[in-house]
Amino acid sequence: MQPSVPVPTPAVAPAPPDPGPAPTRAELVALDRAVELAGRGAGTVLPNPVVGCVLLDPTGQVVGEGFHQRAGEPHAEVHALAAAGDRARGATAVVTLEPCNHVGRTGPCSEALLAAGVVRVVVAVRDPFAPAAGGIERLRAGGVTVVDLPAHAALESADDTAAAVAGAIEHAETVNRVWLHAVRTRRPFVTFKAGMTLDGRIAAPDGTSRWITSPEARADVHRLRAQVDTMLVGVGTVLADDPALTVRDADGTPVGRQPLRVVADSTGRTPSTARVRDDAAPTWIAGADEVGDGTRVDLVRLLEELYRRDRRHVLLEGGPTLAAACFDAGLVNEAVLYVAPTVLGAGRPAVDGGRLHTLAERTDGVLRSVRQVGPDVRLDVVFPVLLSRPNS
Amino acid sequence: MQPSVPVPTPAVAPAPPDPGPAPTRAELVALDRAVELAGRGAGTVLPNPVVGCVLLDPTGQVVGEGFHQRAGEPHAEVHALAAAGDRARGATAVVTLEPCNHVGRTGPCSEALLAAGVVRVVVAVRDPFAPAAGGIERLRAGGVTVVDLPAHAALESADDTAAAVAGAIEHAETVNRVWLHAVRTRRPFVTFKAGMTLDGRIAAPDGTSRWITSPEARADVHRLRAQVDTMLVGVGTVLADDPALTVRDADGTPVGRQPLRVVADSTGRTPSTARVRDDAAPTWIAGADEVGDGTRVDLVRLLEELYRRDRRHVLLEGGPTLAAACFDAGLVNEAVLYVAPTVLGAGRPAVDGGRLHTLAERTDGVLRSVRQVGPDVRLDVVFPVLLSRPNS
Repeated sequence: MQPSVPVPTPAVAPAPPDPGPAPTRAELVALDRAVELAGRGAGTVLPNPVVGCVLLDPTGQVVGEGFHQRAGEPHAEVHALAAAGDRARGATAVVTLEPCNHVGRTGPCSEALLAAGVVRVVVAVRDPFAPAAGGIERLRAGGVTVVDLPAHAALESADDTAAAVAGAIEHAETVNRVWLHAVRTRRPFVTFKAGMTLDGRIAAPDGTSRWITSPEARADVHRLRAQVDTMLVGVGTVLADDPALTVRDADGTPVGRQPLRVVADSTGRTPSTARVRDDAAPTWIAGADEVGDGTRVDLVRLLEELYRRDRRHVLLEGGPTLAAACFDAGLVNEAVLYVAPTVLGAGRPAVDGGRLHTLAERTDGVLRSVRQVGPDVRLDVVFPVLLSRPNS
Repeated sequence: MQPSVPVPTPAVAPAPPDPGPAPTRAELVALDRAVELAGRGAGTVLPNPVVGCVLLDPTGQVVGEGFHQRAGEPHAEVHALAAAGDRARGATAVVTLEPCNHVGRTGPCSEALLAAGVVRVVVAVRDPFAPAAGGIERLRAGGVTVVDLPAHAALESADDTAAAVAGAIEHAETVNRVWLHAVRTRRPFVTFKAGMTLDGRIAAPDGTSRWITSPEARADVHRLRAQVDTMLVGVGTVLADDPALTVRDADGTPVGRQPLRVVADSTGRTPSTARVRDDAAPTWIAGADEVGDGTRVDLVRLLEELYRRDRRHVLLEGGPTLAAACFDAGLVNEAVLYVAPTVLGAGRPAVDGGRLHTLAERTDGVLRSVRQVGPDVRLDVVFPVLLSRPNS
C-alpha cells in the first residue's frame, strides 16, 4: 500500500563523497547529547528542522551547547558558539544536521563556525534542503576538517565504529524525522491520532464519543497538537463532532501558537457556524476545486499544497474515512493511538471504509513505544516505508 | 452492562467474625511469598484453587514452603509441612486460602496442621466453597490461634497495618481470581482473547486472518491456552477458520493437558469434518436444545453447565458476535489482546454486533498490564464489576 515517494533532485551531486577522518568516541558521545538538545525544539522550530550542536575543545571537553529553539531565532551553532566564547577557537563542532550555507532569517552557520575559529565539524545528517545545502563544502573550502558521518556509513565497513556511526545517524535522523521527510518528499509528515476503545471504536452507534479516553489522554493530545503546525480532519468529523481543533490548557483555554486547521471538504459542506471557522486559529477549508478534480479532494495534492504553504507536520485527527484514505494512499508516517480499557462491540471504527481486500495487502508498522497515560495506553507506531533515507 | 452476579449462600454464617490477633510484619511478608508460590500452580491445579503456604518458626524464620501443584496431588500445607519436618511443631502457617476441612482426593488440611503441632495460622482469604469451608473453626476448636485477615479488614481501621492487610488480601484474591470467581458465582471465569490490528480488526474483508499477529504472540497464546481448562468459540469461527483449538508447541504438535473445546452452535452447523471434532482434545458442541430455548444458546446456562462439569476457566477465542454477546451479558472477566502494529481500514472487528447504543452504556475495564510480545503489544484488561468480593 505504501508507494515509493518521489525524491527531490540533489542540489549538489555528492559523488564521490569524502567522509573525512573517522569520528572519535568523544564526538559520538557529544552527538548523542546534541540529538537530545535538538529534540527540545520539536514543534516550536517548524517549518525549520530541529538542530543540536555541541562544541568540544581539543581535549574533548564540552565548551558550548546549543539548539535551535524557535523559527526566526538563532540556529543551534550560533547558540553554542555564544556559550563557548573564546573557547570556540580550535574547537570541534558536533552537529545533528549539516550547517546551513544560506542567508535565511539568520546568517549562514558555516560562516559563523569559520569566523569563530572552529577547526573540525562532525555532521550526522546531510541537509536535503537545496537552498541551505553546501555547508560541508563551504567549511572544507575554509580549511575546516569535516567528518561526514553519512559518507562514512556509505563505506559499509563492519567494525564497531561503523555500528556506532550508523546508530548515531539513526538518532539524528529520528529526532528530525518530521522535517527530513517533509523536505525530501515535499509533503508534510503525517501523524494519525485517535482515541479509541479496545475494539477499535471511536464512537457508539448513536454517535456519542465524549469521552472515550481519559482526561490524562486528552491532555496528552493537546501536547501532541502543540508539536505540529497543521491539523487535518474530514468534513464528516466537523459535521458529527464540531471540534474546535485548538491547542488548549487544562481549563479549555487556547494556549500558545495554534496550528492551521484544515478541513478536507470536497463539496463545501462545512457549516458557516462550525467551530473550526472561529478566530481561535487559522483555518483552510480545502475543497475539490482547489486541490482536486472538482469532485473529490486529492490527498497528495492537499499535502503538496500544505508543503508549499510552509507546513511540515500534519496531525490527522479523523474521521474514519479520511484516515482510511490516507492509509490506503501510504501517506501516514506514524500513528499515535490512545486506547481506553473498554469494549463497545458496536459503533464507528477508528479507520473504516478502506480499499484493502485481503490481508497480504496490508502495510506493517513498527511499534516505537508503549506507555500508560492515566488509565489508557498510548501506542506509537511508525510506518517505516516512508522513513527510508534517500539522503540526497 | 454488567449485571450483579448471584452469590452462593454461605455454608457457615460468619457473624460476628473473630479476627483473632493482628498479623505480624513477618507474617505479611511471608504471605507475599505464599502468593508467589500459589501462582506457580496456575492452570495445572484446575478445577482446584491455587494455594501457597509458608511455615515460620517462633523467631520468624521460614522453615517450610509449599504450593498446590496439580489437581489430585497434595495441597500446599502438606508440601510445606513435609519440608519443615519436626520444625513444624510450634510453627505459624501463613496460607493464601483458608485450609480445607473436607476429605476430597486428599485429607483435610486443617487436621494435618493440627497433627503437625502448628500453633498459629494466618488466613488471607476465606474458602467460599461450601464443602471445604470450616477450616478456621476446626483449627480454633483444636486450640490453634487463627489470624483471620478478611475479618481484620472488615473492622475498617485506618492505620498502616490495615492498609498492609488490605494489600495482602488483594494479592491473595488476585492470584486466585479464576477459582474464586467460579466458586462464588457457579460459573467459570471468562478470559476473552483476540489477536488484532491497531484498528481492531481480526480479518480482512475476504476473511484472511493468518497471520495478523507475530509468531511470538501466537506462542504466548499457547501458554495462555495451557492455563485454562476450556476454550469457547462460536460456530461462525469454526466455519470461517476451522481452528484446531489445541495447546501446541513451536512445531505445531499438541502438548500437555488439552482444554475442553466448546462450540456455541445453536442449530448444529459444526461440520462433521471440523478440526474441533478430531481426537486431539475433548469437545462439546453446545446446542440450543441442551443449553438454550431450543433456538438460541443461552450463554449463562452454557457457563453454568460448564461449572457443573468442573470447568473453572474459559478462554473465549471468538468470533466477534459471540464476543459481543458475552460482553453484553457481563460475562467477560478479563481480556487479553494482542495488537499488531498494522492498520487494515476494513474487515472484521474483534467484537461486533453488540447491543450497545450509546457511550454511557459501556463498561470500563482496568488495565492490568501492557507488554511487548515480539513486534506486538499484549494488553491485559480486567473488568472489575465481576471481581467484587462477596467473600461469603
